[in-house]
Amino acid sequence: MVNYFSSDFKLGILGGGQLGKMLLYETRKYDVQTYVIDPSEEAPCKIAANYFQTGDLMDYQTVLEFGRKVDVLTFEIEAVNISALKQLESEGIKVFPSSKTLDKIHNKAIQKQFYTDQNIPTAPFKSFASKTEFMNAVNSGEVNLPTVWKSATGGYDGRGVMVLKTKADINEILEGECIAEELVPFKNELAVIVARNPSGEVATYPVVEMEFHPTANQVEYVVCPARIESTVADKARKVAEEVSKAYKHVGLLAVEMFQTKDDEIIVNEVAPRPHNSGHYSIEASYTNQFEQHLRAILDLPLGDTSSKVGGIMVNLSGAENHSGPVKYSNIEKIMKMKGVTPHIYGKKITRPFRKMGHVTIVNEDLAEARKIAQEVKNTIQVISE
Amino acid sequence: MVNYFSSDFKLGILGGGQLGKMLLYETRKYDVQTYVIDPSEEAPCKIAANYFQTGDLMDYQTVLEFGRKVDVLTFEIEAVNISALKQLESEGIKVFPSSKTLDKIHNKAIQKQFYTDQNIPTAPFKSFASKTEFMNAVNSGEVNLPTVWKSATGGYDGRGVMVLKTKADINEILEGECIAEELVPFKNELAVIVARNPSGEVATYPVVEMEFHPTANQVEYVVCPARIESTVADKARKVAEEVSKAYKHVGLLAVEMFQTKDDEIIVNEVAPRPHNSGHYSIEASYTNQFEQHLRAILDLPLGDTSSKVGGIMVNLSGAENHSGPVKYSNIEKIMKMKGVTPHIYGKKITRPFRKMGHVTIVNEDLAEARKIAQEVKNTIQVISE
Repeated sequence: MVNYFSSDFKLGILGGGQLGKMLLYETRKYDVQTYVIDPSEEAPCKIAANYFQTGDLMDYQTVLEFGRKVDVLTFEIEAVNISALKQLESEGIKVFPSSKTLDKIHNKAIQKQFYTDQNIPTAPFKSFASKTEFMNAVNSGEVNLPTVWKSATGGYDGRGVMVLKTKADINEILEGECIAEELVPFKNELAVIVARNPSGEVATYPVVEMEFHPTANQVEYVVCPARIESTVADKARKVAEEVSKAYKHVGLLAVEMFQTKDDEIIVNEVAPRPHNSGHYSIEASYTNQFEQHLRAILDLPLGDTSSKVGGIMVNLSGAENHSGPVKYSNIEKIMKMKGVTPHIYGKKITRPFRKMGHVTIVNEDLAEARKIAQEVKNTIQVISE
Repeated sequence: MVNYFSSDFKLGILGGGQLGKMLLYETRKYDVQTYVIDPSEEAPCKIAANYFQTGDLMDYQTVLEFGRKVDVLTFEIEAVNISALKQLESEGIKVFPSSKTLDKIHNKAIQKQFYTDQNIPTAPFKSFASKTEFMNAVNSGEVNLPTVWKSATGGYDGRGVMVLKTKADINEILEGECIAEELVPFKNELAVIVARNPSGEVATYPVVEMEFHPTANQVEYVVCPARIESTVADKARKVAEEVSKAYKHVGLLAVEMFQTKDDEIIVNEVAPRPHNSGHYSIEASYTNQFEQHLRAILDLPLGDTSSKVGGIMVNLSGAENHSGPVKYSNIEKIMKMKGVTPHIYGKKITRPFRKMGHVTIVNEDLAEARKIAQEVKNTIQVISE
């Protein structure tokens, strides 16, 4: 086995945001050497990496030269130069997840087509090369409203997704390649994280449930385990494992799914990396998602994915009407509450809805954790001084 | 409240070893700015601190100038220049634990006298200004063998402690101030970590048990919770809380105790910082000892000290007859075992008995964890290539 621990081995990470930062907790724990590149001088990964540099992740030459410095290359964001990854692979550098996997994911039109080809259940869709093509399809009645419009690329954390109810809404959508997805009424939005290593060992995490705000269309809580029937949970884990097999990915694959009104599971989209829906695992799981990603890409044995206790995650997003140097108002109050752990990503400037951190609430009793999570949400505020 | 999170606030840490490194996981999680000083260029804290410098922690001017750069100063090792801490306190810099606390701890003769003055149960002892004075006391019969010899200062992780059975053993002891402690036969060696913040909030962790090797006089496992009667555990926590009150410390205080044959609890010694006996808490507790230390010294609310699951800690020490670049032989095998987490401190060179890391084994069933801990101990080896 390669000696990764306190050795000359070098792991490269494309992207230095909060996902990279939390991955670095694990590389530090194992004393695995890390090289990180991010466009921003202020990247949360700037410290705790052995080597940090700034650079454009979409630039071929930048990614190529960075990748040549390391033994294994991974990423915390999909928006990277895939041609450079292909060149690095051809030069014998291990890239996990591979460019082949990324090819099938980074464009939503291609991703959806892949599910169809692989007989993986997903909502019916049509793809369009441009905003104009899409508008013509709506006007000709080829696409009926309401429909879910998704930008083919650049969609990330809900950006580039809109539910179009009236023709007026269409003016809001972005230019460029896109898809129109049938609006499938669903009971629950679920996610399952699957880990896979080069040796082919596969492990799925318990099903989590995104709990939405009753009125605002926005995820409020990620709940683990999901409060659904075990038959549905088993089905969701099985579907997630099929998706993982289809992609033959290495590392983590976060599979977002819908539980339809008639308890069918259909795949929404995937992310080939640690994921917001897995943050609860740092406090709740035997092996958190970041350690698991590291184990997977280094071809180490996968860890136990089960939970020690119930976990709920609340995102800390910038409050509306607040821009400027960040202040976490009432954070000392939530730290008084049982089983509450705030994670502060380290972004110095807050903006409305900017992801500034998250809070995990763990408890033996999930219902109790859910109650405390509500208090947390009603108490802490991300504002500017 | 002071805004510690993503702010200009600066926390200083004297010492950049493994305790500091694990404390930095928590300062990163809260995005608290850190300044670290350590004698070694190779210190495990060199990365992940916002600012790192080398320097002699026993040098007055070095500690003074370093301390003036920060708002709150703490340490991960007691061997620091206390006069400099006093000067810093007089200049209004917060030093936690305070120089007053450290004064009563850093010298074992003074520490033992303090327990006697405070009516805290401890083994009978006599103190001596020099090795010669001590030898005279043995020869005159003032001290009877067997006795426990302890160097008054510089004792750390068992160094500077010896059980003297015959007069010949005395040749082995070090020069300088020392104490002779009555050899008290005990059932168990226990420890309790107590956290206290400036507001006076106090929290004790569950009692842990050091399990010794049946023949070699060496701790093999730290077991939480200790496998003792609840009445004894309650007594141990109560004694630890009394010690904490007596010291009026701020931060963590690890209280090492003996359970005597007749179930009395007597105090052995204390450490005013995160402690080896609390490493299990990273995986097992709702609030790990490093986060708790940070909460305490920043006068934030203390976290829940209870455990999610049973925890056992095994130290990873350098194997005998191995010196040189470290290799963790069979680490991939122990990573296959349930609930096993290796912590690699990042020291590049191994030496016989050098503390290179630790492994935590967590499980709902403590007996099962203990079984796996044994497998871990029989499997992994810290060798040189």
